[in-house]
Amino acid sequence: MFEERRLYDGAVGRRQAPADQAAVRRSNLGLVLRHLRDAGPRSRARIAQDTGLNKATVSSLVAELADRRLITTGDVDRAGAVGRPGLIVHLDGRGVCGIGVELNVDYAAILVLDLRGEVLFEHRVALDVPELGPERTLDEVARLVNETLEAAARDVVPVGLTVAIPGLVRSVDGVAGYAPNLGWRDVPVREGLRARVGLDCPIRVENDANLSAIAEWAMGPEARTPDLVYLTGEVGVGGGVIVDGRLLRGAGGLSGEVGHTALGDPDLVCGCGRRGCWETVVGLSALLRAAADPGDPVHDHGRDLETRLAEIAARADAGDRRSLDALHRVGTGLGTGAAVLINLFNPQVVLLGGYFAVLGRFLLEPMAAELRARVFAPDLADARIVLSTLGFTAAVRGGAYVALESVFDDPTLIPVDAAMDPAPAAGS
Amino acid sequence: MFEERRLYDGAVGRRQAPADQAAVRRSNLGLVLRHLRDAGPRSRARIAQDTGLNKATVSSLVAELADRRLITTGDVDRAGAVGRPGLIVHLDGRGVCGIGVELNVDYAAILVLDLRGEVLFEHRVALDVPELGPERTLDEVARLVNETLEAAARDVVPVGLTVAIPGLVRSVDGVAGYAPNLGWRDVPVREGLRARVGLDCPIRVENDANLSAIAEWAMGPEARTPDLVYLTGEVGVGGGVIVDGRLLRGAGGLSGEVGHTALGDPDLVCGCGRRGCWETVVGLSALLRAAADPGDPVHDHGRDLETRLAEIAARADAGDRRSLDALHRVGTGLGTGAAVLINLFNPQVVLLGGYFAVLGRFLLEPMAAELRARVFAPDLADARIVLSTLGFTAAVRGGAYVALESVFDDPTLIPVDAAMDPAPAAGS
Repeated sequence: MFEERRLYDGAVGRRQAPADQAAVRRSNLGLVLRHLRDAGPRSRARIAQDTGLNKATVSSLVAELADRRLITTGDVDRAGAVGRPGLIVHLDGRGVCGIGVELNVDYAAILVLDLRGEVLFEHRVALDVPELGPERTLDEVARLVNETLEAAARDVVPVGLTVAIPGLVRSVDGVAGYAPNLGWRDVPVREGLRARVGLDCPIRVENDANLSAIAEWAMGPEARTPDLVYLTGEVGVGGGVIVDGRLLRGAGGLSGEVGHTALGDPDLVCGCGRRGCWETVVGLSALLRAAADPGDPVHDHGRDLETRLAEIAARADAGDRRSLDALHRVGTGLGTGAAVLINLFNPQVVLLGGYFAVLGRFLLEPMAAELRARVFAPDLADARIVLSTLGFTAAVRGGAYVALESVFDDPTLIPVDAAMDPAPAAGS
Repeated sequence: MFEERRLYDGAVGRRQAPADQAAVRRSNLGLVLRHLRDAGPRSRARIAQDTGLNKATVSSLVAELADRRLITTGDVDRAGAVGRPGLIVHLDGRGVCGIGVELNVDYAAILVLDLRGEVLFEHRVALDVPELGPERTLDEVARLVNETLEAAARDVVPVGLTVAIPGLVRSVDGVAGYAPNLGWRDVPVREGLRARVGLDCPIRVENDANLSAIAEWAMGPEARTPDLVYLTGEVGVGGGVIVDGRLLRGAGGLSGEVGHTALGDPDLVCGCGRRGCWETVVGLSALLRAAADPGDPVHDHGRDLETRLAEIAARADAGDRRSLDALHRVGTGLGTGAAVLINLFNPQVVLLGGYFAVLGRFLLEPMAAELRARVFAPDLADARIVLSTLGFTAAVRGGAYVALESVFDDPTLIPVDAAMDPAPAAGS
């Protein structure tokens, strides 16, 4: 039989069991829609077989999803069919979209996904967030969103927008509680954006690493790994943890704080005032400081980060001792901290994102050596270390994915289009 | 509506949705039985209201549970009844029991719970496990179990036995993979006991701290706290983590390894050969070494541990500087490590068990000071530190609780008793 699993429960907590007929219907509509996304296009008969719903129910559900323009029916399924062949049902990506926005120390990014998870639009702008402060930053973000809505989402209905923040977020009211690298405390991001953008869909705010972990789980190279630790190296270092196929949130949604946790060298003082924070060893600033003197072009914030990282990689490839040592030190530091995470979470996979992924080929060997020495039982708990392929887009992808989840949870959010062509009703 | 949540999924992983009528029936029998345990005795009408099952179904389920001697019906419910008052349905504790066994460095313990979670029997024997080795230890444990079966479980059917081990356990085949404080590697505990005891019910093997965390969640002072970190101080230091109402297991069931994780002083060398293991700062041996010279009676393994801890407490109460300093050091070390766990898991509660609970009043203040300094956002992530009241019985209680879970998962495991009196069928 079929078991439905949800990765992300949003701010409202765990879903309750359906209470009445209408709720059962909504739940079954969502079940079919989600199954088409996760398992791919298939006939009504196959959907019935996969989900355990009876065929008449599936036909009725599919007809309603078509009325809501969430699915289309296409070619005839002839593969291994028993009895009359049925038409293949597909997700229809044209109707709705989810929007992900990321705010980081020196940029803002936006990405729009259609219902099938395909990228409709993406854009990134340089932004000195600590310098601008919350109000002017939110002005800029709102401009980015409004321009995107005009340019890319003109014919698609946005069903949600999720903002990724590098810090602690109270997801229940969308307030960025503490984001030290932005210099933010208690900034009401959700309400600030609500007042600035022309959107009547839900706006959510989430920790960036949590959203990246969700993106990795949903569409990364290790998608659907039940127990996964995601680490991202940027100015700060973020962590997002998937436990048994669900995002670890903790009591207040504050879990996975690794950057300012004492996983590093206890003698180093961090910008936050504490000693031993992991960021002081593996954060981007730590790498740059170790790799080059002040004034070196790799320190120039005006240049694109990818270009500066490529410069460091080029020097390391040319055998530059200082670059190699700096990378070795970060790799070792990654191993020290990751060993703690492996001992605590026992994941199948530790995924490295952000700049860790870009420079991964220099980091993996010293990291592995440290893991062999530090993991309690490396022969028993053999987590694989994997480089993310989503790069710096993981957080915006995760944000857009989460925005779309509301449609999979309740497809009746999307109204029946009165003006549309009649949906094909025959087929199975 | 009613949502059923399971804390412990055992070795078989996540439960699938029911596949057929018989499975639905089993699931509903379990739902009613579990509800009576968790919510207390109540009428059939109230059970129907609480669970969303219809009244006729509930009456039929209750009748079958009575036939299986798992429940009895008692007094008439007159509280707030609408319509005809119903008889109150209770769990019947007399039919079945669950057995928990704990193996630790210098003792073995056993505890028997009836279906209602009441203690039928408990016993502890001194045992030098590292000295005896696996085979002779299992002989002794088998003797303890067989004696208990004769003495205490004569009229009660054991439905399961769970063995707690201070180390990494492969719960899928009941092998203790690595238990450094016992000196064990790859010991087939389940098969070893299966061959030695006269039991035809399931035998499970689990990490001791995981079972203690389950006991705390099920029956401790902070029962049902969704996000809970349990730490136990014994010769080793163990951790068990509840995430959103479920035991954190990890990919191989190896999660929560805190004792040999680098949360302590990086300069201290551990018995396992690594540096910086948390045990070297907060383990029992570290406390005893700091508190008294070799030869002092608190080091005498022949004496009961509680007596030795009481001696240290008495010295501290009398103002003995060395004892106070030793306790202060453990408290600070607890804070350093717990800060990492709070940053990563963001729990509502950190529960201290084992010797941490016994000496807690000396540990809490230095621990709190360290937490204020080390938790990333102590104003946002305010975990409460709580002393366990289950003491050294947490692991055996958790083991017995887990053994009983099989009956709550599937009450039809218990056969209908042909010889019994007819069950009262009237009432609601």
